[in-house]
Amino acid sequence: MSLEEVLNAKSVAIVGASKSETKRGFQAIRTLLDEKFEGLIYPVNPKEASILGFKCYKQVSDIEDHVDIALITTPAKTIPAILEECGKKGIHGAVVIAGGFGETGKEGKALQDTVVEVGQKYNIRVIGPNTSGMMNLKDNLNLVGLRDAPKGNIALLSQSGNMALTLITEAKLQSLKGFSYYVGIGNEADIRFHEYLEFFRNDDDTKAILMYVEGMKDGRKFLQQAYKTTVDKPIILLKGGRSSTGKKSAGSHTGALAGMSRVAKTAFNRAGIIVIENSDELFPVAETLSSLPPIKNNSIAILADGGGHATIAADILTDLGVNVPELSEKTQAKLKDILPGAAAVTNPVDVAGGTDADPALFADCADIILKDNNIGGLLIVGLFGGYGIRFAESLAMKEEDAAHRMGKMVKKRHKPIIVHSLYNSEKPHSLHLLRYYGISVYGSLDIACCCMGALAEYGRFLKSYHPKAKFDFDWRSKAKPEGDEIIRSAREDGRNALLEYEAKKLLHLHGLPVTKDYLAKTVDEAAEFAKKISGDAVLKISSPDILHKSDAGGVRTRLSNESDVRDAFELIMRNAEKFNPEADIRGVIVSPMVRKGLEVIIGTKTDDQFGPVIMYGLGGIFVEVMKDVAFRVLPISPVYAKKMIEETKSFSILNGARGNPPYDRKALTRVVGLCSEVIESYPEISEMDLNPIIVHERGVSIVDARIILRES
Amino acid sequence: MSLEEVLNAKSVAIVGASKSETKRGFQAIRTLLDEKFEGLIYPVNPKEASILGFKCYKQVSDIEDHVDIALITTPAKTIPAILEECGKKGIHGAVVIAGGFGETGKEGKALQDTVVEVGQKYNIRVIGPNTSGMMNLKDNLNLVGLRDAPKGNIALLSQSGNMALTLITEAKLQSLKGFSYYVGIGNEADIRFHEYLEFFRNDDDTKAILMYVEGMKDGRKFLQQAYKTTVDKPIILLKGGRSSTGKKSAGSHTGALAGMSRVAKTAFNRAGIIVIENSDELFPVAETLSSLPPIKNNSIAILADGGGHATIAADILTDLGVNVPELSEKTQAKLKDILPGAAAVTNPVDVAGGTDADPALFADCADIILKDNNIGGLLIVGLFGGYGIRFAESLAMKEEDAAHRMGKMVKKRHKPIIVHSLYNSEKPHSLHLLRYYGISVYGSLDIACCCMGALAEYGRFLKSYHPKAKFDFDWRSKAKPEGDEIIRSAREDGRNALLEYEAKKLLHLHGLPVTKDYLAKTVDEAAEFAKKISGDAVLKISSPDILHKSDAGGVRTRLSNESDVRDAFELIMRNAEKFNPEADIRGVIVSPMVRKGLEVIIGTKTDDQFGPVIMYGLGGIFVEVMKDVAFRVLPISPVYAKKMIEETKSFSILNGARGNPPYDRKALTRVVGLCSEVIESYPEISEMDLNPIIVHERGVSIVDARIILRES
Repeated sequence: MSLEEVLNAKSVAIVGASKSETKRGFQAIRTLLDEKFEGLIYPVNPKEASILGFKCYKQVSDIEDHVDIALITTPAKTIPAILEECGKKGIHGAVVIAGGFGETGKEGKALQDTVVEVGQKYNIRVIGPNTSGMMNLKDNLNLVGLRDAPKGNIALLSQSGNMALTLITEAKLQSLKGFSYYVGIGNEADIRFHEYLEFFRNDDDTKAILMYVEGMKDGRKFLQQAYKTTVDKPIILLKGGRSSTGKKSAGSHTGALAGMSRVAKTAFNRAGIIVIENSDELFPVAETLSSLPPIKNNSIAILADGGGHATIAADILTDLGVNVPELSEKTQAKLKDILPGAAAVTNPVDVAGGTDADPALFADCADIILKDNNIGGLLIVGLFGGYGIRFAESLAMKEEDAAHRMGKMVKKRHKPIIVHSLYNSEKPHSLHLLRYYGISVYGSLDIACCCMGALAEYGRFLKSYHPKAKFDFDWRSKAKPEGDEIIRSAREDGRNALLEYEAKKLLHLHGLPVTKDYLAKTVDEAAEFAKKISGDAVLKISSPDILHKSDAGGVRTRLSNESDVRDAFELIMRNAEKFNPEADIRGVIVSPMVRKGLEVIIGTKTDDQFGPVIMYGLGGIFVEVMKDVAFRVLPISPVYAKKMIEETKSFSILNGARGNPPYDRKALTRVVGLCSEVIESYPEISEMDLNPIIVHERGVSIVDARIILRES
Repeated sequence: MSLEEVLNAKSVAIVGASKSETKRGFQAIRTLLDEKFEGLIYPVNPKEASILGFKCYKQVSDIEDHVDIALITTPAKTIPAILEECGKKGIHGAVVIAGGFGETGKEGKALQDTVVEVGQKYNIRVIGPNTSGMMNLKDNLNLVGLRDAPKGNIALLSQSGNMALTLITEAKLQSLKGFSYYVGIGNEADIRFHEYLEFFRNDDDTKAILMYVEGMKDGRKFLQQAYKTTVDKPIILLKGGRSSTGKKSAGSHTGALAGMSRVAKTAFNRAGIIVIENSDELFPVAETLSSLPPIKNNSIAILADGGGHATIAADILTDLGVNVPELSEKTQAKLKDILPGAAAVTNPVDVAGGTDADPALFADCADIILKDNNIGGLLIVGLFGGYGIRFAESLAMKEEDAAHRMGKMVKKRHKPIIVHSLYNSEKPHSLHLLRYYGISVYGSLDIACCCMGALAEYGRFLKSYHPKAKFDFDWRSKAKPEGDEIIRSAREDGRNALLEYEAKKLLHLHGLPVTKDYLAKTVDEAAEFAKKISGDAVLKISSPDILHKSDAGGVRTRLSNESDVRDAFELIMRNAEKFNPEADIRGVIVSPMVRKGLEVIIGTKTDDQFGPVIMYGLGGIFVEVMKDVAFRVLPISPVYAKKMIEETKSFSILNGARGNPPYDRKALTRVVGLCSEVIESYPEISEMDLNPIIVHERGVSIVDARIILRES
């Protein structure tokens, strides 16, 4: 069922309606009245005849008319029975406020499962439980009990009522913006994040989506939906619960598993989501992205009166990866014409007191700067808005004139202006005017810069956006019958781990450059296979019961002649028996010694929230000590595989650091892409480890491979 | 001359006094009058007879009385002559507002030098030039023209007038705190940062020092003074100009060289300075550190009503290295007694609505939590201050009661409380009360956490503070006559670089474990020396004209017998001649092949701002690719040497990663300490590079050493 009927409900039953002013069941009705909800309200409470002038129904089934949704304010244990009633009455949506479900432990989880079951039985979509409620501000459908929330075009999804309250309060007091919807996600028992997202994507009145997330039940579907959404509407997201204490706190409060944050961050970024680290920046960035055009060329100018602010702004923007390039000579010449001699006109531009007598000069400078084709946006820092306060009242009119002109400039040139003003908290009219035109104004320099950074980041994303890139797997589309057979026979064998030679065979089917191995069952076979190999051979034990082959004395390398091979075979067999007399020995793998190169590893695993993810890094100390690895959610395109490899610090080594020739990056990128294909082909695979992989100057050799299947 | 007479001046000449209301020379007098300066004011302007009721003097020398300082508001080129006049009059302090000096280029720099010369000639201490001025708020001596700056116990030093304006405005609007002094440092031509610092250290009315710095002229003296200061008074500092654009912007505006920021950060930290990264946090942290006791055990508790804020706070504090440990069982039991069943009582503590009917419960919880010996401070996040607004007005009284109690609690237990309140901008009285007691209150969760982090950081510093640790060199105290001789003879030789064997000899004098080398002038000598070496030998060219020995074919390793040694000697000599026929060849160094171990490098150089600094890191890719190095300013104590080594990511390799035995960390730490001794012994050394150093399981071998002397 679509969420239309739930989020745009025209009639609401308040189950647990009350006459007591401190009760939620009273406040809910009071708020709907105060906010002038134009739909129908049906209080339900067996003990009351009327509440606030409305007839009160003993039970839901007594209501004569069709009802879209029920707001249920009664305690946890009463919910299943009430939902049953709602279902029988034909109600298709419910908002369940009560806590005491999945967030509290086993018992609560069972109760939550019952709620979901009843919901499914009657086709009722449930918001919550453990939620602060839901608001549709367009229709004044306010089921939160928080009044005077400002209306606007930002949809708000939050897993914390407090964070929602923070953001709504901030919007009301600090901006001219507001919200189209607010949904308290709560335990995400029924309706999932991606479903809300799809709804907001299709909602014409929503221009940006603001999210506070602690944990997601189905991150993969969310990413898919997000990737479709962000190309039209920005999503701004803060993820709480990075630290173990934070996770603990998040866990006890939403009943969700707070996820691995590095995977989460790269996943969100790839879907075009603007990920926010500081909660102070959350609303401002949403405000900015909902109002101003993104920066097309990742380059901005800074305009200041005096130094300090410009210096700090340049530092922050550089850290955020935004260019602050020199202005063109033409632009510099034009600025020189109107500014005093002491002014700096490269970038940052310092008017050096030139605006003291006429702050409208800011608009003249802005006009010149935004005409520069190399400049995608303008950040004005310092005193604008305060000239009328600080110097002479008459200057306020000039500031207002400048505000009008800059507002129109933004529309005309499709380039954003953001203003940092020291006088923001004094609320001068000129700053109000800027906001009226959609220009963001902040008293905090950090926040102004962060918003500029977000416009640049969104611009970079849109530029790199490729409609053919995809987030969803085309499961099995490229599976090979022989591959399926390998998995099937391992399963039949009662195993969840493929043996090395099985894993390599499967990888080989998909064109992955594994070493050419032979499984020798006897010493004669080993000797014979070794002859087929040009150069030295390596022998490795093959047994489902011996995972760490070296530890069991099960590996012998650099075998250059037949007698060495024969000795090695016998030794490995003896060692294996010593190591585990019960071990099921399948034989010994005979492989070529791989020629020298750079050791890298690639691994895939299944993330609780996002499904299959891939990890890449240089082997040995780079992974183990330096933790220099890159993550991506799968599937991965060649472009993203390349970016992923390039983003590791050790990339320059791959590229031939210290006078070495470069290694074969292309072949390595291809391996990453083929790993994606393998995972997509066999959903049975839960984990895959290619370690080590040797990258040569030409080509790549996968020396060892481990594949773990899902529990069947 | 002490700054007493300048910063606490009782009489001021305003040179450039004016009747025009827009001129600085008018505003300066107007402000002194408005702010009720109780000292004497003497306007100076040859064209006026009186200004604002004061007799106006034609020139400084006309003033009948003694004058402490001159505020000079005239243009740059007039300054030397005016200073001459002031000097002749016996004035010992000047504030020079004009720009157009060192910050503008060569010509300005020359003018600035003249100003400094004249100042020295007459013993005039100069603030600026290129400054917004100076304020002594205790005596209402306001030479900035900014009115109503709040008075208090924070001294403000800023290299940007805009930043000062930002901080003063923020103090006025958002806090009950204020300033004892403000000094606009300007170009730091005469009075240096450390001199101001010393003055504030001795000023009883200053409890904390707040600094915005772009570049320092004498960072070393600043650090020394800071280390003496921070044990009593916290210093809070933001350094602008990290990025190249930021540096450019800073350079053009203060005429200072913006420094290497990693070195700066470790240097500041070691001196106990709280370094701030975001300008939004600068004033709040100063406010907090000037009012609240530091956290003694780096452990705090979080108290919240609801989840989201606590989750985010735990994330931020964990990132800041602050512990959020579980509360003791006793504390948990006591909290359970007073909170509802759904409350979380581990840490973060979630009152789960328990405060809805009585927010004074926050004080009860705070009392219980602060009695827990494992908890050094309390962060309250969320709605405190808003219960009276959100629920019922009567609750405001209970909040006020809680505020009074918590305020007294902080004093009694010497543990800080910081409050984040969503309702901060509504200015409820309870929050005003908290501030009255010195409790910090912020509407931003990020800032509240950052302030808590700063209290913990300052506590950690005070705990680790060692009065015997020192920042200043005892130059030459441990120099050896033979060492001096090596340097002298290189100088005589016309060289600034010591040859490898000279450098090693010098290091050996101080007990550093260099390889035992011989300088062979003939092939026979080489063969003879090689016999003295147990194991293989290495031969290296020795020539002041060949810096990169390998590039010149000047190194041969693994020489195991006499004929190899002889061949190597001849080959090296031939190669050297081919490489540079003009080269002055001193011979060939014969060294032992060093046994295997871990390669590390140690380097020292002379930082423009901070003097000698030392760098340590694992060799090869760790330094070159991963940039995994640690810096410290010298001299370095054994404890700091140990910390420095431990702070590199690659430390676990040194410690024996991947099943390897640990390397000799103690010996390596000793090497770092001895490097410090060498630098301290010979101030002539400008740079030293020990690369490679091989760390063994037992002992350390310095394989190559390079020492560069200062230009003599």
